[in-house]
Amino acid sequence: MTVAKIALVPGDGIGAEVVAQGRKVLDAVLPGVEATEYDLGAARYHRTGEVLPESVLQEWTGYDAILLGAVGDPTVPPGVLERGLLLKLRFAFQQYVNLRPSRLWPGTAGPLGNVKPGEIDFVVVREGTEGLYAGAGGTMHTNTPAEVATEESLNTRHGVERVIRDAFSRAGKRERRKVTMVHKTNVLTHAGGLWARTFAEVAREFPDIETDYQHVDAAAMFMVTQPQRYDVIVTDNLFGDILTDIAAAVTGGIGLAASGCINPEREFPSMFEPVHGSAPDIAGQGVADPVATVLSVALLLDHLGHPEQARRVEQAVAAELSSRTPGQPLRTEEVGDRLAAHASN
Amino acid sequence: MTVAKIALVPGDGIGAEVVAQGRKVLDAVLPGVEATEYDLGAARYHRTGEVLPESVLQEWTGYDAILLGAVGDPTVPPGVLERGLLLKLRFAFQQYVNLRPSRLWPGTAGPLGNVKPGEIDFVVVREGTEGLYAGAGGTMHTNTPAEVATEESLNTRHGVERVIRDAFSRAGKRERRKVTMVHKTNVLTHAGGLWARTFAEVAREFPDIETDYQHVDAAAMFMVTQPQRYDVIVTDNLFGDILTDIAAAVTGGIGLAASGCINPEREFPSMFEPVHGSAPDIAGQGVADPVATVLSVALLLDHLGHPEQARRVEQAVAAELSSRTPGQPLRTEEVGDRLAAHASN
Ligand SMILES: CC(C)[C@H](C(=O)O)[C@@H](O)C(=O)O
Ligand SMILES: CC(C)[C@H](C(=O)O)[C@@H](O)C(=O)O
Repeated sequence: MTVAKIALVPGDGIGAEVVAQGRKVLDAVLPGVEATEYDLGAARYHRTGEVLPESVLQEWTGYDAILLGAVGDPTVPPGVLERGLLLKLRFAFQQYVNLRPSRLWPGTAGPLGNVKPGEIDFVVVREGTEGLYAGAGGTMHTNTPAEVATEESLNTRHGVERVIRDAFSRAGKRERRKVTMVHKTNVLTHAGGLWARTFAEVAREFPDIETDYQHVDAAAMFMVTQPQRYDVIVTDNLFGDILTDIAAAVTGGIGLAASGCINPEREFPSMFEPVHGSAPDIAGQGVADPVATVLSVALLLDHLGHPEQARRVEQAVAAELSSRTPGQPLRTEEVGDRLAAHASN
Repeated sequence: MTVAKIALVPGDGIGAEVVAQGRKVLDAVLPGVEATEYDLGAARYHRTGEVLPESVLQEWTGYDAILLGAVGDPTVPPGVLERGLLLKLRFAFQQYVNLRPSRLWPGTAGPLGNVKPGEIDFVVVREGTEGLYAGAGGTMHTNTPAEVATEESLNTRHGVERVIRDAFSRAGKRERRKVTMVHKTNVLTHAGGLWARTFAEVAREFPDIETDYQHVDAAAMFMVTQPQRYDVIVTDNLFGDILTDIAAAVTGGIGLAASGCINPEREFPSMFEPVHGSAPDIAGQGVADPVATVLSVALLLDHLGHPEQARRVEQAVAAELSSRTPGQPLRTEEVGDRLAAHASN
């Protein structure tokens, strides 16, 4: 029996190595997943010029989820794979919740001297379909001294409201029940006003959830000095991009950071991927850490309605990280085997 | 003899307390400064409704610099003092170099466990007159489910080129001679393209300066994991706003962070201010740390062509910070006295 139909996009560099472990763990905890591999990314682009054929996009509408390793390498011009593949999927599949959990796991040491494992545990709900990512803008008098370049941030009540509501409903399932909105309302008064008004209105539907607001510059600072204070953060697309990388930094680096580009209604497939890139410098050596991919599989399991399995995957990761000795080299395959074995018990 | 004409804006909260120390140190190292106080900020706004009278703006064109403490308090609606005072000055006086040095001073401990004093020493050259701070944008169908809100980032070759050139010339006076441009060229392809092309062209004029580029999300991460790598960073207005707060966080907090909004040509007065705010919670108690203001005075001295005096002020700060014992309460006045005494020797 097929319990879910999943597209696998190993992509470039270490992508294939880590996705293989993600799949191994997924199969171990949830038998019956039908997985189909797709060859996309920098390699495919160089070979055929194709980034995301329309036919693939069509096929994927029948899928439950996509698991992606990493796409890109330094030889592809900036924007080609980002706009043509990653952002295209977020927009086409209405993946308006870009979910990025941050935890300082037991056994890991982040860069912050005064923060202990277990003390950081928040999730960023980043808007995924609007703002400066809309691609609106252009240049005029290009390549002359009179050149003007614009980028437009587009924000709708529709888009802002749905992601804020999602953040509140996630907070309702957590222990601390707190949502912090991050924006820059003192400078971006137009978009900031829409965000602030919508946040206040949606908050009224959730009277038992605590609310807070911070400007993005202050939030970037507090994420370093007091990351313990956050529970759920909801923010705009670009602010979320920056804040989640700071969050990854304070919790031990992007090697451990998972993400999901989620369409909560499941009208379209959601995409799950590690935050790290294709890391061409270590590709093919079997030394990439698959933990970020495996944690992305946990997000996938949650999204598809298998929370018990998701928790088992997280427990396997916690056990794996607790048992590591700093500086000891790891083997991608062996980590995958250990995680699969632990999660299936 | 008057060596410089300076406007003092104590502002709100702790502003008056720290500006008094800044002035004390300034007078100690550079006799003959003519300083005039201006009453602006939240208190004035509440009393008279005025934010920055046109007459003040006119008067200031005859000044060399402005030293500001802090303006604002939670009762003023977001945007009023920011747009009406701070940003208005940056735009009206073409303060296109928003300069923010970051150092981990001897005797201070930042939050990063693995970074020692002396290892962080970079300066962010943030563009101050363009980008998303232009205020372009609006809302439509406001307060209805169909509401759309926009913010437009406006970037000109003129504006981008002058700030990049300033960053290169500052790098030329530093030991490591390296400029890192930070943007998000893979998503903001229009503005990012202008920045990248301009950076490449200006770099050709400075063949002995090393160059680097990072996306803003990566830079936000590296600022936490490897802040040692930076020398001069040049970036757009909003990215600079966020990055400099992370920089303040990793170097011990905004209590020590100085800034200058500079018009390098000195056609208009430049403004110098601590990065911290008015801190109403500790105002009037004489316990605010004046170091950020005094370091802003060092930037002011550099800008007005008194580098020797600026270095003496910095040495006084280094001595002060080295002699502090963590947790010991400080008295604003006493710190100011010690700094003035040390700097005047
Ligand atoms: C690759 C890029 C388009 C992307 C983004 O900016 O969203 C990445 O940084 C991320 O955070 O997923
Ligand atoms: C107060 C605000 C307008 C300002 C900014 O965003 O530039 C502040 O955050 C700063 O960094 O000087």
